[in-house]
Amino acid sequence: MSPSNPVINFGAGPAKLPREVLEEVKESLVDYEGTGISVMEMSHRSADYTKINNDTQSALKEILNIPDNYKILFLQGGGTGMFAAVAMNLIGRTGKADYVVTGSWSKKAAQEAEKYGKSTWNRDPEASYLYYCDNETVDGVEFNYIPDSQGVPLVSDMSSNFLSRKFDVSKFGVIIAGAQKNIGPAGITVVIVREDLLDYAMPITPTVFDFKVNAGQNSVNNTPPTFVVHVIQRVFAWIKRQGGLATMEQNALQKSTLLYQEIDNSDGFYQCPVEAGCRSRMNVPFKCKTPELDEQFLKDAKALNMIQLKGHRLVGGIRASIYNAVTINETITLVKFMKEFRHKHSSLNAQSQIYLS
Amino acid sequence: MSPSNPVINFGAGPAKLPREVLEEVKESLVDYEGTGISVMEMSHRSADYTKINNDTQSALKEILNIPDNYKILFLQGGGTGMFAAVAMNLIGRTGKADYVVTGSWSKKAAQEAEKYGKSTWNRDPEASYLYYCDNETVDGVEFNYIPDSQGVPLVSDMSSNFLSRKFDVSKFGVIIAGAQKNIGPAGITVVIVREDLLDYAMPITPTVFDFKVNAGQNSVNNTPPTFVVHVIQRVFAWIKRQGGLATMEQNALQKSTLLYQEIDNSDGFYQCPVEAGCRSRMNVPFKCKTPELDEQFLKDAKALNMIQLKGHRLVGGIRASIYNAVTINETITLVKFMKEFRHKHSSLNAQSQIYLS
Repeated sequence: MSPSNPVINFGAGPAKLPREVLEEVKESLVDYEGTGISVMEMSHRSADYTKINNDTQSALKEILNIPDNYKILFLQGGGTGMFAAVAMNLIGRTGKADYVVTGSWSKKAAQEAEKYGKSTWNRDPEASYLYYCDNETVDGVEFNYIPDSQGVPLVSDMSSNFLSRKFDVSKFGVIIAGAQKNIGPAGITVVIVREDLLDYAMPITPTVFDFKVNAGQNSVNNTPPTFVVHVIQRVFAWIKRQGGLATMEQNALQKSTLLYQEIDNSDGFYQCPVEAGCRSRMNVPFKCKTPELDEQFLKDAKALNMIQLKGHRLVGGIRASIYNAVTINETITLVKFMKEFRHKHSSLNAQSQIYLS
Repeated sequence: MSPSNPVINFGAGPAKLPREVLEEVKESLVDYEGTGISVMEMSHRSADYTKINNDTQSALKEILNIPDNYKILFLQGGGTGMFAAVAMNLIGRTGKADYVVTGSWSKKAAQEAEKYGKSTWNRDPEASYLYYCDNETVDGVEFNYIPDSQGVPLVSDMSSNFLSRKFDVSKFGVIIAGAQKNIGPAGITVVIVREDLLDYAMPITPTVFDFKVNAGQNSVNNTPPTFVVHVIQRVFAWIKRQGGLATMEQNALQKSTLLYQEIDNSDGFYQCPVEAGCRSRMNVPFKCKTPELDEQFLKDAKALNMIQLKGHRLVGGIRASIYNAVTINETITLVKFMKEFRHKHSSLNAQSQIYLS
């Protein structure tokens, strides 16, 4: 490998997008399909954008097999915005909600909900909803099952593992997913909401966060980031061309297994803090034996054009995010580097020990 | 003129962007300045994006001559989101605010504020702020002066005339401006806020709308639409290359004068409902003598590739939006067409009258 290696982007988000999609978007940037203008220059109420909006929703409905009694919304504000929006739209039903806190993001969601009602960690049959984060990006923790909410509407933040596997949408009341991992560029949060949950918004809910208003207006009550939706449309088409969620799921399993195997077979050279049963297939956090080795690892990786591998600032270390757009070959390249780095520094350690003995 | 005329985009927003900017963005779309990745694929905390974020703010500060005691925020939610955010951040100071309602957008802003406090149409020295919309996109009404708020913090929605003229930022408490007119693609709202107004957010303010949190975190408390900010950076650089706001102001005056002169010299064939003293230099709404002629006008214009000229659905008729990116030559082309259309249909009328007499 040389400094002219192609860049491999293991960023946690905004993250790698399929190269094909970027090339398509580049092609249409100045002149969208012969209109003579960019998607950025179109009214959100124009026929061309209406088609983009509707096609994007249809593709998602097909990919995820979303039942007819759900609305798909494209809202602004990201996951953090939706932490407030979920509470404002739903917590009014009984005034309280249950939050399962498994990491940084679910903790933030619970804190935000406290502004609008009572959020508890204990199961309460009177809860307006049960909230959990399906994949904790910072901590590398993922649910490998859908929790049984015993009749309470289930709300899930799937920002960082959305569209990486099939799941039964009908088990959920609301699903939120920020775009900047598996969906597209930052700027849109996909919200999938069951229609019977549209009637509980608190009076203080900002119009832009009101699920019912936005469902009724097909997400163009106010101007959405139209260009971001256009890129998302291309990402959804790419997923379909790849074989849909079956392929995404198979790839995610293969890529994450390659990484966890190297970590687990490293005789403790690499350590992952997450128990095997709840390890994320999207975000693989690990550390070397010492912080100095972590630094060296990141430096050497960067020299080989493997970028955005630094762990989240809250936890440090290394994190390889392997969203849908990261290929199996790119993951193999990282694993090869991990092996080489380990052998180099294990033998150096062995040598040092020989000299010291 | 033939059907192969270049497209001229008179859309009210999302609106025309400078062609140079689109070409630059196209060039950097797949590989931003040799990084090997797109801006869409960068962490919002990366060195590269931090530079984009900071450079964009510096450029705006320079263009508008923004004093040091103001913060520049890039928030999500558009104007409609900011209608709620302004009230949630400011109305708590005294519990009430004054709204000057001059059209559709200021009316919506006042209605949204009612969720968080008392909004009145009368001047109240106890008001937390005085709010007005500097340019009403739907109605074509623009302030040609800055209202004297008599010590009450002045808040202005400048979404549709921002960066079209110089003005004294120090007269304002808060300025909001949705990007999709003179700033860039939809997805970002620029907020300029005086620092002493950062301390009044209501406890129910969603984190993404909390001016103080976002000021403290340089607008990356949560992931912003990074690519949209990148395009905005290029638009600001374009404005500077053109000669800054002096050029924008001169062009706006010239373009709007050309249109209003044709309307006023048409012997009533075209009618603009707005009084001369408060006509917008950005959005020129007008009607022909009959709705049938309006239809024919829009059809003929479209056949000549002059697009997005239809009036807002609330008021009908025709609207020519002539934001910064619309050139003087493009405006002249529209005025020529208006003359031709008028002569054609005036003489037909005259002929009809001859036959009828």
